Amino acid sequence: MTKKIVAGIDIGGTNTKLGLVDEAGRILMHQTLRTASYDDAEMFAKELSSLLLYEARKFEDSILCGLGIGSPNGNYYTGIVEFAPNLPWKGRVPLARFFKDATNLPVAITNDAKAAALGEMVFGGAKGMEHFLFITMGTGLGSGIVSQGSLVYGHDGFAGEMGHMIIKEQSNRLCGCGRYGCLETYASATGLRKSYMKFLAERDKRADEVPENIDAKYIYKRAQAGDKDAIASFEYTGYILGLALANAAALFSPEAIFLFGGLTRAGQFIFNPTIKSFEKNLLNIYKGKINILPSSLNESDAAILGAASLIWNELNNSKG
Amino acid sequence: MTKKIVAGIDIGGTNTKLGLVDEAGRILMHQTLRTASYDDAEMFAKELSSLLLYEARKFEDSILCGLGIGSPNGNYYTGIVEFAPNLPWKGRVPLARFFKDATNLPVAITNDAKAAALGEMVFGGAKGMEHFLFITMGTGLGSGIVSQGSLVYGHDGFAGEMGHMIIKEQSNRLCGCGRYGCLETYASATGLRKSYMKFLAERDKRADEVPENIDAKYIYKRAQAGDKDAIASFEYTGYILGLALANAAALFSPEAIFLFGGLTRAGQFIFNPTIKSFEKNLLNIYKGKINILPSSLNESDAAILGAASLIWNELNNSKG
Repeated sequence: MTKKIVAGIDIGGTNTKLGLVDEAGRILMHQTLRTASYDDAEMFAKELSSLLLYEARKFEDSILCGLGIGSPNGNYYTGIVEFAPNLPWKGRVPLARFFKDATNLPVAITNDAKAAALGEMVFGGAKGMEHFLFITMGTGLGSGIVSQGSLVYGHDGFAGEMGHMIIKEQSNRLCGCGRYGCLETYASATGLRKSYMKFLAERDKRADEVPENIDAKYIYKRAQAGDKDAIASFEYTGYILGLALANAAALFSPEAIFLFGGLTRAGQFIFNPTIKSFEKNLLNIYKGKINILPSSLNESDAAILGAASLIWNELNNSKG
Repeated sequence: MTKKIVAGIDIGGTNTKLGLVDEAGRILMHQTLRTASYDDAEMFAKELSSLLLYEARKFEDSILCGLGIGSPNGNYYTGIVEFAPNLPWKGRVPLARFFKDATNLPVAITNDAKAAALGEMVFGGAKGMEHFLFITMGTGLGSGIVSQGSLVYGHDGFAGEMGHMIIKEQSNRLCGCGRYGCLETYASATGLRKSYMKFLAERDKRADEVPENIDAKYIYKRAQAGDKDAIASFEYTGYILGLALANAAALFSPEAIFLFGGLTRAGQFIFNPTIKSFEKNLLNIYKGKINILPSSLNESDAAILGAASLIWNELNNSKG
């Protein structure tokens, strides 16, 4: 019997990952290309499509049924990538159409965090859940929100920007979006670094004691070594994140909240203070009912699996 | 041809309103009973059901098809009213079952703010909208959130507690829920009063200049008369509300936000600062796309219409 497979494509500023994925979430083949090598988005779509069709033909018992794409600023409703600052293509790029024209297959696109949330639902720890939040913490903070078994897209496709909730009024932390006090300026690798620098400054550390390139990994190592400022900056990050998640819980009342991304590698240093602050700031009626869990997706597979889930979801929903 | 009608029941701590409503949202008959006169919830359900069945028979060309109930702490999933502090019945009351047993008709229950949000969607300004927020501001702040055409209930039925987002970290305003800084302690009649008292205190008003029973209506009148402290307290209320709505918009990306309830009677005094703060605090991608509107529901009908919409919604969805 012919087996159905789909392609999962994760477009990043530097690299694009693509893979062929079966219905059980097995990645049959994957490859990485440099996004930056393609000045022209239509050419990019054509070449990737040729490559995917070629690779798919190698699996003789399988048929390629569709393409799922996770891309920064990818809009599910329109299929357009809109003004993505880190991609080589400027303005509004109809990427879904380019791939559709090149493959004659169904194509769905959304942003990377939303795709990963679907990955968690279809192949990860959120299997069978109808209501959950998925938070990805790297340089910034992204989120995908699932309510009644569906991603929350909002009226224009741009829902789920949890990183841009203003969590501290009258904050002096400037966000990339131009406003101050966004969750992302606290609960991300960038935010952690800001907090660490602040704790160091407050302790009046001499400049020559502070290495030049402080990143989340460095702060994590310092925390493991018992550095009080490093531990305090994780605690502060968790405190703010827990507060924000308690607020989001009051709106969605989810079954669980999944944390994903680089910052979660710090394990208990980030999870413990987040959970403590979450439970403390949670409205009584939810207490003890909502688990904060590490994503069960493998970090290197999540992007491809997420993009693949998006199109599996489409194909399965359109059956009925 | 026989016309379908439903009953809308709005249960309040003091009074219960009930009405018979047709599919166009016409209230054919309505009545008010004292909730407090009924010690026993099952007896309450029996008597109300008898009354409704009796009244419905008077409309000879019509058939009563179901009952919708809006009640404080009413849980849509379980049909249970859970620990409602202002109702005469203690603990967990299976009110939907009591009404079902007494009428042999479909019954649906939810809380009052969610019912009113459905009322707005079925009969009001949100007709045809799939994504909107509905905020009711009286003594407290309640909300109903509609995403993809459905109320957001969350995994346990308790989603949509926007009044309990902690909007100011390290606030000294104690909320009825036991925490500090909830939106409800700012953006409600109670919150407005607190702000007014604060502005008066800061201006060092003598105690004999301040009347004993300051309520939202009084503050509104003062604002109309040009009282700077009254105007400032509306502005502050709107500032906080606008910030909270901008945060909620980043999660849901709604088409519109409807404001309902006593506090909205202050018109521009509350709408202008809310809209100003909302637009200022909104993430760029949403700017100019989301309208903040007064509810188009008549305040005295909204509760009955909301409860009726809940059951209309059930009956219409179960058709297909």
